[in-house]
Amino acid sequence: MSDVAAGRRVRGGGGAARRAERSAVSLDTARFIERNIPNLEILNEEALQIIEWNAETVLEEVGVNFVENPAALELWRGAGAQVEGERVRIPRGLARQLCATAPSRIVQHARNPARNVEIGGRSLVLAPVYGPPFVRDATGGRRYATMEDFRNFVKLGYMSKWLHHSGGTVCEPTDIPVNKRHLDMLLAHMTLSDKPFMGSVTEPSRAQDSVEMCEILFGREFVQQNTVMTSLININSPLTFDSVMMGALEVYARNNQACVISPFIVGGAMAPVSVAGTLTQVLAEVLAGVAYSQLVRKGAPVIFGAFVTSIDMNSGAPTFGTPEASHITYGAGQLARRLGLPYRSGGAFCGSKLPDAQAAYESANSLNMALLSGVNFMLHACGWLEGGLVSSYEKFVMDADQLGVLHHLAKGVDVSENGQAMGAIREVGPGGHYLGCAHTQANFKDAFWRTDLLDYKPFETWEEEGARDTVALASARVDRLLRDYQQPQIDPGVQEGLQDYVARRKESMPDAFV
Amino acid sequence: MSDVAAGRRVRGGGGAARRAERSAVSLDTARFIERNIPNLEILNEEALQIIEWNAETVLEEVGVNFVENPAALELWRGAGAQVEGERVRIPRGLARQLCATAPSRIVQHARNPARNVEIGGRSLVLAPVYGPPFVRDATGGRRYATMEDFRNFVKLGYMSKWLHHSGGTVCEPTDIPVNKRHLDMLLAHMTLSDKPFMGSVTEPSRAQDSVEMCEILFGREFVQQNTVMTSLININSPLTFDSVMMGALEVYARNNQACVISPFIVGGAMAPVSVAGTLTQVLAEVLAGVAYSQLVRKGAPVIFGAFVTSIDMNSGAPTFGTPEASHITYGAGQLARRLGLPYRSGGAFCGSKLPDAQAAYESANSLNMALLSGVNFMLHACGWLEGGLVSSYEKFVMDADQLGVLHHLAKGVDVSENGQAMGAIREVGPGGHYLGCAHTQANFKDAFWRTDLLDYKPFETWEEEGARDTVALASARVDRLLRDYQQPQIDPGVQEGLQDYVARRKESMPDAFV
Repeated sequence: MSDVAAGRRVRGGGGAARRAERSAVSLDTARFIERNIPNLEILNEEALQIIEWNAETVLEEVGVNFVENPAALELWRGAGAQVEGERVRIPRGLARQLCATAPSRIVQHARNPARNVEIGGRSLVLAPVYGPPFVRDATGGRRYATMEDFRNFVKLGYMSKWLHHSGGTVCEPTDIPVNKRHLDMLLAHMTLSDKPFMGSVTEPSRAQDSVEMCEILFGREFVQQNTVMTSLININSPLTFDSVMMGALEVYARNNQACVISPFIVGGAMAPVSVAGTLTQVLAEVLAGVAYSQLVRKGAPVIFGAFVTSIDMNSGAPTFGTPEASHITYGAGQLARRLGLPYRSGGAFCGSKLPDAQAAYESANSLNMALLSGVNFMLHACGWLEGGLVSSYEKFVMDADQLGVLHHLAKGVDVSENGQAMGAIREVGPGGHYLGCAHTQANFKDAFWRTDLLDYKPFETWEEEGARDTVALASARVDRLLRDYQQPQIDPGVQEGLQDYVARRKESMPDAFV
Repeated sequence: MSDVAAGRRVRGGGGAARRAERSAVSLDTARFIERNIPNLEILNEEALQIIEWNAETVLEEVGVNFVENPAALELWRGAGAQVEGERVRIPRGLARQLCATAPSRIVQHARNPARNVEIGGRSLVLAPVYGPPFVRDATGGRRYATMEDFRNFVKLGYMSKWLHHSGGTVCEPTDIPVNKRHLDMLLAHMTLSDKPFMGSVTEPSRAQDSVEMCEILFGREFVQQNTVMTSLININSPLTFDSVMMGALEVYARNNQACVISPFIVGGAMAPVSVAGTLTQVLAEVLAGVAYSQLVRKGAPVIFGAFVTSIDMNSGAPTFGTPEASHITYGAGQLARRLGLPYRSGGAFCGSKLPDAQAAYESANSLNMALLSGVNFMLHACGWLEGGLVSSYEKFVMDADQLGVLHHLAKGVDVSENGQAMGAIREVGPGGHYLGCAHTQANFKDAFWRTDLLDYKPFETWEEEGARDTVALASARVDRLLRDYQQPQIDPGVQEGLQDYVARRKESMPDAFV
């Protein structure tokens, strides 16, 4: 007997009723993950102390640049930093001390309170891909993204059981003027989904629009007292904070809205070609960015971000799902926990042009690492293709299905009396079969994670049905989800108020396409 | 700026020379992995003690069956077990006590000493797929495996940089009579590769043939004093030890050859539909099997095996890359380490019919879990398709490439002065670029894992070259490897001796096809 017998099918446990149930589209959304398994701690205490010491050395001796931002320089000077030109040198210990007022856990409210998420501690909140100018699907190939694509991705995110968050720029709606598309994007998140979402960061005025639209949706007082957006502020690595991103951060911090403060690093290009060196720079940048957020408003909610990929030294291309990116992600998680900050990293990253095996290897490597590195907020958790240039319809539902694996992994092992199953082992005995026993009957429905997408059919059935690969199955699922989509209920007055705001703001500006 | 900029290519660091170097086939084989990262311990002390207590309860109260094996029953009776019919009930503590004489680390010798492997401690040894009656390739589709396929897979394994072990039944050569194919398979491993391999277990006489052929290859005395085979002994779960497998185990144990003693479990069918219950049964079975090996010969080298998959309760199909299989694999690793035994589990498992995204998600989930669960010997590390029914040519080289990721992950983080890279951070400063700096130039060649297969090309180049997916790239790599294959040197007298042995043994038996 060899392991090939694993290919044998075991009869029983099935039934047409359950198959029908499974093929129906469900609108359940799982609660955000609360891990019941440990994180993987790859750095020992000595390594952590070296990196923390070095990061402070970088802040003190090399410093960071705050570009075209005199007000920021003034705040830093007031806090005790040395400012020369745009260079800010931060005395050892000061940035860490300023970071202490940032909360360790953030509740982000959704318009449907059942969809509220908590970011921090042992939580993991999953949000879709962010930023691609292109989309790809199995029938239309690769093309520039439009507002219709954007709405479709918001709908797919709303219908995904395992996605807790509607995200932000799920793709760039390139058919809408650059200076107006944030309005349509926010309107889509607010009305087509009831999950939490992100605000615009491409200009301070667009961040302000995001806040004002939230005031229409949630009420002005609620927004001032609660976090209703988590927005993505990238640091221009190495060690540079530009005025556009900082301007958006300032708007959000002043309005008590959360920001992910995230070095944007292709290792070997924007950071040293070594893991410890990259972690040092990441920590220095986050310390400076988070400290600055607390100078703008003490207690402003922020997240320790790390977007890290390594570079292929042959082609110059960024690479994904690689061991070095994993080392950095694991290590940055440890550094974030020692700072007491929520942690953003990970994603279904890949460099592949197609949602093929390469895409899936790389994405699965990244997703597993993100779970085990203690990530609290995972952007790009589904739909990312081609190094982030493309939002893929099929990969969106493929990755989203795999997010169910993370939910079940995070549960850990049940060692209750029922979990121990000693009665079943006694009942079945040597040479017996567990399918019919009482314990199996009582537990099988919830015992194992079940895919909504992948193929487990007998070879002959699979062949008769067209020998479909994962992309073909995903394409059919995308069609079914979009066909079955129904808008979640929203107060008509609120919807009208949002639409009016968008129309008014659009009228107030000429179109801009760059 | 959004993360989409990851899609931008960075110039530099490349060059035609390095591209040429990369496309050449290399015959380096990496040394087996010695982990420098921690294992993930998902069970706490209380959970471990519950499972260990319950496993002893199972052995004592339920017992195990040794089928058609009076000599085994006699050994058990002599050791103090209660034997009734074929049922063996083992008093609490006895099996664990007997296991104590099994070594915690095994050196398996290869005919090329540079390929010797150590199994145990923090090591990880990678071996290819085992057992499939079918093969699949991109051009020929799915068909019954032949001896030519077998030889091809041995060649691919020999040429893989990241595979340390030639494996055993890399596919079933169905064109050779059942009672003779082990001779051809062993001859292929012994002559076409110089990596370590596995012996036959399908009959005790075939195990004896394996030992005798090794005596020709290594010398009789060497074989008696050293381990030169690691063979796969499956337990017929639940709790049943059949006479064929035990007969093979007895031959190997008496000849000081290693066996993997491995429960073969589809969770929900051959074990309870719960993780803790399955772990209890796995531990009980391994305790009984390893204890028996030590009754046959004290000190016989054995490995704690766990082949575990869960069942899809809709279709009855075994499933792979699932969270429950991961929980069991992590937990079984902890149990093996507490027993002080080397641990076999994991593999590039998948249920998919094609080497598509499903196959890659499932395989990557399994490979990551195997590394982090402390596996010492990983069978099925590449080439497994369709629940183990198919050996896939393309998936063999796809998975084998991903095994490089595991090697680099296992290295952990270098925090030496060079790793810290403070000179580079000081040199580059805010807004600079690392590609040209001295530290990057000195380190880039070995800093990052590099694929031999996956696509990182610019979109336009990739499109011009035919927009190939991973399977197409893998198919080309398979062709190139088989074309470039050269047999490793072997003493002509030894090769002739082996060929004579095979011819003589084949003549001595009529063909049997079942």
